[in-house]
Amino acid sequence: MRYSQMLLPTTKETPSEAEVVSHQLLVRGGFIRKLTSGMYTYLPMGFLALQKVTEIVRQEMNRAGAQEILMPMVQPGDLWEESGRWKKYGPELLRFRDRHDRDYCLGPTHEEVVTDVARRELQSYRQLPINLYQIQTKFRDEIRPRFGLMRGREFVMKDAYSFDVDDAGASRSYEIMRQAYHRIFERCGLEFRAVEADSGAIGGSFSHEFMVLAETGEDTLVICESCSYAANVEKAAIALAEAAPSMEVLRELVKVETPGMKKVDKVAEFLKVEPAAVIKTLFYLADGVVVAALVRGDREVQSVKLKNLLGATDVEPLDEEQIWQQTRLPVGYLGPVGLELKMVADQEVMRMVNAVAGANEKGCHLTGVNPGRDFTPDVVGDLRQITVNDRCPVCGGGLRLKEGIEVGHIFKLGTKYSEAMKANFQDSDGQEKPFVMGCYGIGVSRVVAAAIEQNHDAKGIIFPVPLAPFQVIVLNLGPKDEGYCTAAEDLYTQLRAQGLDVLLDDRDERPGSKFADADLLGIPYRLTVGKTFEKEGKVEIRSRKTGETQVLSLEEATAYLAERVHLALS
Amino acid sequence: MRYSQMLLPTTKETPSEAEVVSHQLLVRGGFIRKLTSGMYTYLPMGFLALQKVTEIVRQEMNRAGAQEILMPMVQPGDLWEESGRWKKYGPELLRFRDRHDRDYCLGPTHEEVVTDVARRELQSYRQLPINLYQIQTKFRDEIRPRFGLMRGREFVMKDAYSFDVDDAGASRSYEIMRQAYHRIFERCGLEFRAVEADSGAIGGSFSHEFMVLAETGEDTLVICESCSYAANVEKAAIALAEAAPSMEVLRELVKVETPGMKKVDKVAEFLKVEPAAVIKTLFYLADGVVVAALVRGDREVQSVKLKNLLGATDVEPLDEEQIWQQTRLPVGYLGPVGLELKMVADQEVMRMVNAVAGANEKGCHLTGVNPGRDFTPDVVGDLRQITVNDRCPVCGGGLRLKEGIEVGHIFKLGTKYSEAMKANFQDSDGQEKPFVMGCYGIGVSRVVAAAIEQNHDAKGIIFPVPLAPFQVIVLNLGPKDEGYCTAAEDLYTQLRAQGLDVLLDDRDERPGSKFADADLLGIPYRLTVGKTFEKEGKVEIRSRKTGETQVLSLEEATAYLAERVHLALS
Repeated sequence: MRYSQMLLPTTKETPSEAEVVSHQLLVRGGFIRKLTSGMYTYLPMGFLALQKVTEIVRQEMNRAGAQEILMPMVQPGDLWEESGRWKKYGPELLRFRDRHDRDYCLGPTHEEVVTDVARRELQSYRQLPINLYQIQTKFRDEIRPRFGLMRGREFVMKDAYSFDVDDAGASRSYEIMRQAYHRIFERCGLEFRAVEADSGAIGGSFSHEFMVLAETGEDTLVICESCSYAANVEKAAIALAEAAPSMEVLRELVKVETPGMKKVDKVAEFLKVEPAAVIKTLFYLADGVVVAALVRGDREVQSVKLKNLLGATDVEPLDEEQIWQQTRLPVGYLGPVGLELKMVADQEVMRMVNAVAGANEKGCHLTGVNPGRDFTPDVVGDLRQITVNDRCPVCGGGLRLKEGIEVGHIFKLGTKYSEAMKANFQDSDGQEKPFVMGCYGIGVSRVVAAAIEQNHDAKGIIFPVPLAPFQVIVLNLGPKDEGYCTAAEDLYTQLRAQGLDVLLDDRDERPGSKFADADLLGIPYRLTVGKTFEKEGKVEIRSRKTGETQVLSLEEATAYLAERVHLALS
Repeated sequence: MRYSQMLLPTTKETPSEAEVVSHQLLVRGGFIRKLTSGMYTYLPMGFLALQKVTEIVRQEMNRAGAQEILMPMVQPGDLWEESGRWKKYGPELLRFRDRHDRDYCLGPTHEEVVTDVARRELQSYRQLPINLYQIQTKFRDEIRPRFGLMRGREFVMKDAYSFDVDDAGASRSYEIMRQAYHRIFERCGLEFRAVEADSGAIGGSFSHEFMVLAETGEDTLVICESCSYAANVEKAAIALAEAAPSMEVLRELVKVETPGMKKVDKVAEFLKVEPAAVIKTLFYLADGVVVAALVRGDREVQSVKLKNLLGATDVEPLDEEQIWQQTRLPVGYLGPVGLELKMVADQEVMRMVNAVAGANEKGCHLTGVNPGRDFTPDVVGDLRQITVNDRCPVCGGGLRLKEGIEVGHIFKLGTKYSEAMKANFQDSDGQEKPFVMGCYGIGVSRVVAAAIEQNHDAKGIIFPVPLAPFQVIVLNLGPKDEGYCTAAEDLYTQLRAQGLDVLLDDRDERPGSKFADADLLGIPYRLTVGKTFEKEGKVEIRSRKTGETQVLSLEEATAYLAERVHLALS
């Protein structure tokens, strides 16, 4: 491609609304332009980047034996009624009616449609296992779309769905996808981790997220320093150390005045105990019902764990006013004793002896609070957020926290959709059984953004070679000089003949602005026809990533770049 | 691909709702499945066919210098307000509101969005000409979707938009696309015609349709037998022969009783004149206003010509009851004399002398009707439908009518959108000017259906090689015999190594059903490992199109097929 003919509007200005670096650089580099909130047009450069990801995903899905299909993006509401998600899915599901007043939605995901395909077309165990996938534009009506391609409303997704005869088969299909995802993100040239994850609104029993590591990631991962354990903090299990029962004598409940001491630290200091001796009581709204969550005073509630312990669809913390409205209890003095609400306690709380807790009365706490004697939680489990001071739940090793960007998510769905939608096959024993399903997503457009979050510097993007829209940019610094032009054109032709994707900067611009654009666009190799060409007939090759430069003859330059690029793609 | 592992559910039953052969064969061959009215899932075989068309389109668009982008499918209503189409576009435009109650629609076409991109990113004549295209799922809420992929609600389209500094530039861009379209449909292996066409709702001054010739086509083309003229009948101009003014004496208007004679033929017979001596008067509703259309009694009104003569957006014929409701005039006795409606007359009507016309009174006609003297139309023009008895408007040669399926449409838009949306650039003279635009569509999914409408027989599809999902099917007729299996597997491997797309029918099925499926699926070459293999170690190759068969050794077979396929693709 010739730069002079390409719609590649780079800018120096950073758009004010662009909070994250990938959004800034994608706009500054002329990759995308905003149409409206959460929706972007991919200009030619952006489309090429998207195509690179798409092609890698497609090849690896096909290699893993999945079959590409294409389902409608508009989906009939009655299928969603069948699965039960028409009511359950929040306002992110964009619902509308057609001219005949029938209910439809824009597909945020395709479990319903693919399960409908399966129940019509797959009758026998002989047709299984099967894995169907598509690469398609999806829509989710996010309340606050932001971060450019990271959290848009309209985005490109690869979604795959596997159908098996039983759980063992589903595990094999899951494992094949897990390996395919590893190959995909390795081939993309990204640093990533597969972590144990929560299954969220999709449902199912088991899932892994694929996280591109980047400081700006919205998710926090916990990674073991000793073994291969890695998990999303939403999911990461707490390894509770064995402990002998306490020998301490249980004291009486005593109400003490603690005026103005609404925070754990304040109460602990006043009562001369550690924060770990205080029971922290928080109220949440779980599917419309107020519940109490109890953790040790030095711990934080992990709301996804709370949601899972309750089996709830939606869990939101309540603020002071909401709590007053709903329970007439004073925030800062909440406690489990005498509380007439559903209570969920962290496992550590049950080991506490003679603890401090709110008295459910303004300005008062209780001391000598003992779980089991003074209150009995409805649910006890792993409720708190993991920290770096915890130990690896697998090997007991030390833990590190890392930020990551979710780019893929694989789920064992089980029979959630097949049972709800009566999607059955006939097994070898003649019995009708529901398909055991898995589903597997990759945020194709998000991979482009995540690659940039992970790979950039002050000057711009540093694309990994496999995702670069162009692998080489040829800068002609003498666009009015015949010798320069001939050399640049020859190089352009020869490099393309080697199968490389090349951008020829043939614009009549100052060298400084050509260098700046090349850096901004993140093209892995820059080949400059400049002063060294005039002096000694040689060209300069510079690696965007390492800054390493080489001065080579024209023939050497082509061979060198072809070798480098093909190596990076292999 | 191995047949045993592919989701390829062929059926013998023809779905009752499938009225056209492409719909029947796409369902019977397991290419598509209906999700809901006008929306289909492409199963693996259908997706492969779609991909073949997509790839040819993409390559030729790129070769023609167009740049691929991707615009959102969901479009904000305010852009459509700017262009004026939010109100003008009928209920085919699916409108809805997002969670913040803002207006959106699903894109049936992208003039508004791309014009918005242009006005933001293209400031100078130096950036022009430019042609931006995308290949994307579109949605039109058709009132009666039918014919499978021929007239669906959701479909895949390639849409391109060119921007030029002036009309001469726009003509060059148009010509480049016209040639690219010729290459695309030639490469698809389809018999087609580019015809002059009406511009329809998209607007603009000039357009060509690309029509795949097929008996089942919804459109009628008129084609000159002598020169290269071809046009859609909606558009085809009538060459009015030169004629000397009539010497006939103008007679008086006389009212005659013609009870029950509502048809032209009846009145003509009764009054002993030719039908060509009767003025046929029809009423239409044009943008909500009743108008009268006048043609000679032996002619038919072409409603698209009527619409264009009126400059109307929507023109619908009125039936007897509607006419009575709106005008209190009796159908069968309508005529132009004394009529207080807007009148549009065909040019031939103005040459009529002493004609017969309805008297606007039940059971009565007038004789001696003379245009100019007895009535004066508001608009006179080419209003009637062309027939095979007309002459070519270019060379005067004979005409033929052919049925065709519209698969592509290119438009010179002019400044319709750029003026409405204030999309300007600075020209070399420093003046702000609106872009001169063109737009260019291809119904990618429709091409698959049209290819089948044109190429099929009683047994199934006969894919042109370039569009075939697989070019070769290898039938293993001894799937339990090791020798057969080894030969079939070797051929499968060798053919794929030659770059061919091969389906290996490794199923444990009767030979008859394998032959039937191969014919149904329309794969161009069938290679059978059967009896001749057992007897003499040779395989049979059969062309789906010609039925020609060859018996060859395994090596010969591979070389023969590779040569045939590569020839067909070149």
